[in-house]
Amino acid sequence: MQSAGKPNTLTRRVMVGAVPVGAGAPCAVQSMLCCAADDVAANLAQIERLAAAGCEIVRMAIPRRDCLDAFEAVCAQSSLPVVADIHFDAISAIEAARRGAAKLRINPGNIGGLGACDAVIDAAGEAGIPIRIGVNAGSLDDAVSARTDLTLPHKLAESARGYVEYFEGRGFQDVVVSAKASDVNTTVEAYRVLAAELPQVPLHIGVTEAGTLFQGLVKSSSGLGILLHEGIGDTMRISLTDDPVEEVRACWALLQALGLRRRSPELVSCPTCGRCQVDLIALAQEVDERLRMVAKPIKVAVMGCVVNGPGEASDADIGVACGQGSGVLFKGGETLYKVPEDQIVETLMREIDQM
Amino acid sequence: MQSAGKPNTLTRRVMVGAVPVGAGAPCAVQSMLCCAADDVAANLAQIERLAAAGCEIVRMAIPRRDCLDAFEAVCAQSSLPVVADIHFDAISAIEAARRGAAKLRINPGNIGGLGACDAVIDAAGEAGIPIRIGVNAGSLDDAVSARTDLTLPHKLAESARGYVEYFEGRGFQDVVVSAKASDVNTTVEAYRVLAAELPQVPLHIGVTEAGTLFQGLVKSSSGLGILLHEGIGDTMRISLTDDPVEEVRACWALLQALGLRRRSPELVSCPTCGRCQVDLIALAQEVDERLRMVAKPIKVAVMGCVVNGPGEASDADIGVACGQGSGVLFKGGETLYKVPEDQIVETLMREIDQM
Repeated sequence: MQSAGKPNTLTRRVMVGAVPVGAGAPCAVQSMLCCAADDVAANLAQIERLAAAGCEIVRMAIPRRDCLDAFEAVCAQSSLPVVADIHFDAISAIEAARRGAAKLRINPGNIGGLGACDAVIDAAGEAGIPIRIGVNAGSLDDAVSARTDLTLPHKLAESARGYVEYFEGRGFQDVVVSAKASDVNTTVEAYRVLAAELPQVPLHIGVTEAGTLFQGLVKSSSGLGILLHEGIGDTMRISLTDDPVEEVRACWALLQALGLRRRSPELVSCPTCGRCQVDLIALAQEVDERLRMVAKPIKVAVMGCVVNGPGEASDADIGVACGQGSGVLFKGGETLYKVPEDQIVETLMREIDQM
Repeated sequence: MQSAGKPNTLTRRVMVGAVPVGAGAPCAVQSMLCCAADDVAANLAQIERLAAAGCEIVRMAIPRRDCLDAFEAVCAQSSLPVVADIHFDAISAIEAARRGAAKLRINPGNIGGLGACDAVIDAAGEAGIPIRIGVNAGSLDDAVSARTDLTLPHKLAESARGYVEYFEGRGFQDVVVSAKASDVNTTVEAYRVLAAELPQVPLHIGVTEAGTLFQGLVKSSSGLGILLHEGIGDTMRISLTDDPVEEVRACWALLQALGLRRRSPELVSCPTCGRCQVDLIALAQEVDERLRMVAKPIKVAVMGCVVNGPGEASDADIGVACGQGSGVLFKGGETLYKVPEDQIVETLMREIDQM
């Protein structure tokens, strides 16, 4: 595995609970809770599922002040640092900082202007927690939005840059910035501008409202893949209209694909063709499913024929190259033995267990 | 929508049947048949499904000479140009060129050496069809594989470059090149080297053996996304261990995400959070499913709350921003009307039908 772009080591380090973000730390994996904001038990259960999938930072919306008690209870019992996501209401943000938030996420453009930000900044400073300044193409502030001299990516970056300068001017440097759009090229360009113009600030990257699973994976993997490959991105979220556990799986799959982090097995499997003489799709899907329970950063190959099969299978940590009704197992570059088709999965999983 | 990297206009133009590849033509979408190579009816039925999904070029393996009759019958009746995929046997390649192949795909490293290639090149020349020289990390030829002065991406590119020079030396310029690996960074680097060293040759891009649907989408979208965004890639295949129709859907989703081509609706939908007061995941998935039958290149937004909802929904061609048990429809930037939650999907689809 080759490595992609190195993480940006020039940014400041921000701590979200015990999780470092920026200054060369591995890109931290985030997701967002989607249970009712006042349901403590449901949110805690979702946090445990997300943590088990590899989530490192979790975000929770506080849509109304009467949800603050629930937020406080979740923070107190959560195994992951909890970021308070707040729009429109500075008081909720201030209260969240006092009640256990590990970070605040606000869009200064909708929290009541920069004046209202002051009290939020001070509350975060007192609590010793960072703030993510999150601008979004769907909620740009009117002044920047109206500028005809800037393209949308530059509007997003300009909006974020103005806020960062305001925060820094107030002596608060503990910021992370995001500038998301639902369009991939807009998102990529906005983050490139931010990385160039704000080299000191850790960036939270994401394509927003990327859609349901299939399209969301494609949009997020291409957009964030381009950025991560260029070394841009200190923490990430892949937004999917689906179970947030899928967001976490997607983040790890992307970080692994780019050689940036490794957590779980990688399956190399061929797409099958007219040469294939076993039911490879079913076989690979079963291996894929069972590998989800394996917490070893190994490369597993399931190959359908003799063209690339032996080559890929022997290059992987463990693999099988299938022929007519049977498969030859490889491990660490060595041929092990041949097994009948109906024993391939069991044999492969047993060998993996022993690694 | 911003556009990503422009297609490379410096390459030669290759025709695969009636489909242009290279010289600025839109990146052509490919997939590969996975039915038994001797089952004419099954392969033709799969071609029709692939064509309906937007596939433009289809590849068929010829694993044995006794499959040549079936290949010829498929070519004669196929609505898409059919590429013959042949390993090990030059005679099969020569026969395929004579029996209706729109292109040959061979790996000169396993067809019997460059000597055996001569007759294949001549057969393609006589048939007036191009050849894809397909090198692959799993089946590199021994001489290049053994070189210790080259990294794997450079071995792939070097191998391809040597073959292209041989083909061109014989007066055959009608070539497309691929150099696939299952590792994303290796693939990206190999194609960058090829694009720099062989600017005249159209490139067929792909991450090989990318795995089952979820991981395959992530690996292919990131790897091919990086390349396409840089303007590299004249035709593409996304390899998935799944129904090849999913490969075609994935190609289009990626080309659309990068603003390079547009064929079907794009769904912008938010990932839901504690602010959401409708069952947005189910709603978005239903819209997503029904949009597959719509052949209009429109942008449809399904948003869960007032934070980014109205902004994104009004930016889309048509959209809905949901509130408590209801949704407000937007069309062309204008607010239309409010509907109860249980009528959102029907109303949205009716408005889309009328566009």
